[in-house]
Amino acid sequence: MSSWKDNLRTIDPYVPGEQPNIEGMIKLNTNENPYPPSPAVEKAMKEFDLDSLRLYPDPNSELLINAIAKRYEVNNNQVFVGVGSDDVLAIAFMTFFNSNKPILFPDITYSFYDVWAELFNIPYERPALDDNFNVRTEDYYKENGGVVIANPNAPTGIKQSEDMLRDIIEHNRDVVVIIDEAYVDFSGESALSLTKEYDNVLIVQTYSKSRSLAGMRIGYAMGNPELIKAMNDVRFSYNSYPMTRLSVAIGAAAIEDEEYFQKTNKMIIDTREWTKKKLTELGFSYGDSMTNFIFATHRSVNANEIFTKLREKKIFVRHFNSPRIDNYLRISIGTQEEMEKLIDELSIIVGGR
Amino acid sequence: MSSWKDNLRTIDPYVPGEQPNIEGMIKLNTNENPYPPSPAVEKAMKEFDLDSLRLYPDPNSELLINAIAKRYEVNNNQVFVGVGSDDVLAIAFMTFFNSNKPILFPDITYSFYDVWAELFNIPYERPALDDNFNVRTEDYYKENGGVVIANPNAPTGIKQSEDMLRDIIEHNRDVVVIIDEAYVDFSGESALSLTKEYDNVLIVQTYSKSRSLAGMRIGYAMGNPELIKAMNDVRFSYNSYPMTRLSVAIGAAAIEDEEYFQKTNKMIIDTREWTKKKLTELGFSYGDSMTNFIFATHRSVNANEIFTKLREKKIFVRHFNSPRIDNYLRISIGTQEEMEKLIDELSIIVGGR
Repeated sequence: MSSWKDNLRTIDPYVPGEQPNIEGMIKLNTNENPYPPSPAVEKAMKEFDLDSLRLYPDPNSELLINAIAKRYEVNNNQVFVGVGSDDVLAIAFMTFFNSNKPILFPDITYSFYDVWAELFNIPYERPALDDNFNVRTEDYYKENGGVVIANPNAPTGIKQSEDMLRDIIEHNRDVVVIIDEAYVDFSGESALSLTKEYDNVLIVQTYSKSRSLAGMRIGYAMGNPELIKAMNDVRFSYNSYPMTRLSVAIGAAAIEDEEYFQKTNKMIIDTREWTKKKLTELGFSYGDSMTNFIFATHRSVNANEIFTKLREKKIFVRHFNSPRIDNYLRISIGTQEEMEKLIDELSIIVGGR
Repeated sequence: MSSWKDNLRTIDPYVPGEQPNIEGMIKLNTNENPYPPSPAVEKAMKEFDLDSLRLYPDPNSELLINAIAKRYEVNNNQVFVGVGSDDVLAIAFMTFFNSNKPILFPDITYSFYDVWAELFNIPYERPALDDNFNVRTEDYYKENGGVVIANPNAPTGIKQSEDMLRDIIEHNRDVVVIIDEAYVDFSGESALSLTKEYDNVLIVQTYSKSRSLAGMRIGYAMGNPELIKAMNDVRFSYNSYPMTRLSVAIGAAAIEDEEYFQKTNKMIIDTREWTKKKLTELGFSYGDSMTNFIFATHRSVNANEIFTKLREKKIFVRHFNSPRIDNYLRISIGTQEEMEKLIDELSIIVGGR
């Protein structure tokens, strides 16, 4: 009878990670920040005129863009904002990857890249990381429609050197190279300076991890003004007012509080290093995580067994049932206290094995 | 040299209406609600735990979806939410309009439909409204890839009868028919009941007009669960967490305050009817507006002249420089006091002409 179903865009739906909400749980499964947002957020909210919500937001999110531009010492026309870095990346894919050549990204990386490629009918290839989960730069020398590198990478936590990035970019001057830096604030240097040398490099970052604002959905991209303008043209053709008035106010206030940002990032990094040592003592191994999570495998106990037993103790970590990584767990860094509880439970689970 | 520009999605950027921010202005150009959001919003904000912003939102926006479903007496799986109705409509276009046949919508209607069609490479045709800006239903009998009807229509303000909609739907059982009801709360009945009879009808509404929350970017669609699931599959393949935690909390609280909603809508409708009478006395004519704006033309004074003179008085209305409607002004309904000032200025501008 009715055939409207023939015209559907059919797609294997992406299934977001579970968001359990259980009394007393320790949530280490979605790489959220264990610390609350900057106190500047509370202040901004107190000063916010709720009556103004009757009005549309500024389509250009100027207040937020100015604050980000100031923080990174770039011009306003070098910053693009979106509803989380997922929105920013999706628009970048839509904007920049319109050739018939495949775009390239690693076989093990953020699980949304292939979903966007499918959604927007972009051909893609996934060169395999080496056995230590490092990028083989020569895989990115061939002709392609664009390159996406998460750095540090997820879920491995491993960061490639700027020299490696530069090598990939030098071999790809005629396509856009996206560097997804969702976790960069836990790793030292950003590759932002490369955008000054190369007009085809786009850096993408997010408020969801290091700025403790996953719930506000704020992501941003930085690059040369031509890249940003092209993304804005697509953005304004999709939705003129993507950011809520509260996202703009909160995002601007949060990024100005550099001191809190540095303090909480340091706490997370310290706890990460402590956790690494303890995991080693328990027989785990892992790449050198430069993120707010550790991607670890145990010498004798199966990842799925550990995952299930932790879950019974209301400790949630992430397990990917995918080739090459199905014996790993991705463990977000919580507070020091949470990680101590995790280590206690792990030592019971793997004890002596 | 570099050819990354060859792969750009090039598109005539949509230019959003201006958002002036001038002391003492009367803003009647973007159909915002002159009244603040429900007091329930302030209460929800006071109770909101800002520390929870460190966590991702519920990907299913359950709290918000439940509140909308309850208000409209439908099931949860019949409601889709997005970042304003622009996001909802864009996803509906992406989801449902994947044939090679043109989709159909009127020549004079919401100016985003053709922009989305261009963005997603959807062919389209725009049958002309008749001279009174009414839809000619027979234009929608031919084979097509989908139908979009704004009802009441923008920028005309005119509402088509349910019989006319039913006629169009009956001739289009094999494509999705979207009824964009952004302004329906100022017009009496919604066509929501048609979704019970027809599995291919999608109703789209928004918080931006009748619920005074343009700044929070909340839109929703209602229809049979298969339509909603198809949209969610696309949604989750684009962005897993589209709605901020604050949007969910505020949206749920606002829709529960039915009394405030009825009261402010009635005030706007009363002011609209008062304004219509005054405009007639001044020599304006207009279709029978069923929205929170009036689309009016003057018997002797050019629209652009009126637009410019009002602007000098810090009164902002909307003028579209488009064929057939370039001698009209779209005037949003403000408070009674604002409209009295508008009428005073208009009587000076058109006085005796």
